[in-house]
Amino acid sequence: MTEDAALSDADVQSVRAFLQEYQRSLCASFEAAEAGPQIFRQDSWEREEGGGGITRVLEDGATFEKGGVNFSHVAGARLPDSATAARPELAGRAFQAMGVSVVMHPRNPMAPTSHANFRFFLATCPDRPPVWWFGGGYDLTPYYGFEEDCRHWHRTAATACAAYGADVYRSYKRWCDRYFHLPHRGEQRGIGGLFFDDLNEGGFERCFSLLRDVAASYPQAYLPIVERRAQLPWTEAERAFQEYRRGRYVEFNLVYDRGTLFGLQTGGRTESILMSLPPVVRWQYDRRAEPGSREAQLTDFFLRPRDWLAEDLAPEPGQEA
Amino acid sequence: MTEDAALSDADVQSVRAFLQEYQRSLCASFEAAEAGPQIFRQDSWEREEGGGGITRVLEDGATFEKGGVNFSHVAGARLPDSATAARPELAGRAFQAMGVSVVMHPRNPMAPTSHANFRFFLATCPDRPPVWWFGGGYDLTPYYGFEEDCRHWHRTAATACAAYGADVYRSYKRWCDRYFHLPHRGEQRGIGGLFFDDLNEGGFERCFSLLRDVAASYPQAYLPIVERRAQLPWTEAERAFQEYRRGRYVEFNLVYDRGTLFGLQTGGRTESILMSLPPVVRWQYDRRAEPGSREAQLTDFFLRPRDWLAEDLAPEPGQEA
Repeated sequence: MTEDAALSDADVQSVRAFLQEYQRSLCASFEAAEAGPQIFRQDSWEREEGGGGITRVLEDGATFEKGGVNFSHVAGARLPDSATAARPELAGRAFQAMGVSVVMHPRNPMAPTSHANFRFFLATCPDRPPVWWFGGGYDLTPYYGFEEDCRHWHRTAATACAAYGADVYRSYKRWCDRYFHLPHRGEQRGIGGLFFDDLNEGGFERCFSLLRDVAASYPQAYLPIVERRAQLPWTEAERAFQEYRRGRYVEFNLVYDRGTLFGLQTGGRTESILMSLPPVVRWQYDRRAEPGSREAQLTDFFLRPRDWLAEDLAPEPGQEA
Repeated sequence: MTEDAALSDADVQSVRAFLQEYQRSLCASFEAAEAGPQIFRQDSWEREEGGGGITRVLEDGATFEKGGVNFSHVAGARLPDSATAARPELAGRAFQAMGVSVVMHPRNPMAPTSHANFRFFLATCPDRPPVWWFGGGYDLTPYYGFEEDCRHWHRTAATACAAYGADVYRSYKRWCDRYFHLPHRGEQRGIGGLFFDDLNEGGFERCFSLLRDVAASYPQAYLPIVERRAQLPWTEAERAFQEYRRGRYVEFNLVYDRGTLFGLQTGGRTESILMSLPPVVRWQYDRRAEPGSREAQLTDFFLRPRDWLAEDLAPEPGQEA
């Protein structure tokens, strides 16, 4: 990664404009997919240290039991270590960070939760050009697995990355599998997707274009799945399993997620950060699924990293049974 | 704190025997207080690195929706930093740790959740006598506050500490208030109680006696409150508020609690560690209580550290409105 003297104020403003428009259009798409009358409410907030955001939340919908689409643009005097795991030498610089983050929790246990995040960082320093980078991605957390959905999700992600290099999808897909892992459960959070950080390779135009293409592909990846699954019938036992599995989502976000912990520990707006938590969650002691059941299949098959583009759904290297 | 050459194997065994008997008798008391037929189930487990434990869990009771009483005795080659915040110089020594930890979640929103923990550590080193210490305490998390309950809880705690010095209760009470604090919410987890760590002042006999007296007072502090409140009528709205407030319990345990994080990150038995999490939890975006309502009173009055023994329920120093 190199410093890029060519970055202009107009570039920074164009990222901001893109993210704000993305928030608006995503909310509109989710409202269109919502079977009931619920819409996103909106809260604008400011941060004492600089910047602020717009939080949009939909609750108690017919399709989406809870969902949030957050835009924020904050500035600070000292970049914390957690903002860039790969380059601790930037810690302590003044910075700007802007991003959109999304978590959607459908009501129907057959429909998966999804998460997406797109962000841009600028680390500034007197007398030197700023260092900038993009990060982002999206991942899917099913409660009941459907091969067709997993293939569609990953195919859409791979298509979005294809123009940027032969290995981009695979590399971001593996990064996603590494990141969304719960060591204390020995489980993945979901079936993965894309995750990237510290992206500035190839210059601003290429990176911003990659971010835009991946961002545009997220609703294409997610909405057809929600439309297929949110109509399926479900039982009380399946609903209880969904509520139980949502506990894993809480455990990941509160114990491991860098963005969440960074936000909570540095005085971010708590309600905006924790809008990601599911609406109703259950914890039961040592719950085990009936061997061979669909509940067992979730962890035994779907939550094991594999190549969702391969005919035989091969496990990722090192994940063979 | 000084090293204590006088500690014998028999002393260590007597702590273990006390903790095991304490687990048994606590479970018996909770079963006696349980209005339905539910009893504690029991799981014994071993740890690869040495030691193990007995986890006892009651679920779906009439009085207790979920409760756990955990005994563990583990040994390790290297004491982690998090085990003793006050003396990092002991990190890296071989150690033994034994303890009982308890979390009880009543079903009725008028009845508070309680937590207790009693533990003993030994840090050993070749050629030198072991360093040992006790830690423990208990704290109460109401959803609907009752002054009478808070006074009884703290009076019982103060009585248990009285023989050990004029300032023991106040000092452990303030330690508890400092520990059970959620910075990202600007809230206390509950109304506090007692918290102590690194206790070896005055020798083994005194410290063990203090631990036993505090441990014995925990069911005396808690059960009369449960008996009074678990019979009260409640509404669906009050139940929803309890489920919402339980979210704070999850946030504290997963983001801040030293014991939980230490356990999860060092390969403890996940199901035993997370038995503390409530059975059903709700997160709602930016929920606010009606000013002056009982729900507002919880945070406005009960969750602000105060002197529950004073006639006028004075705020703790620095907590004045």
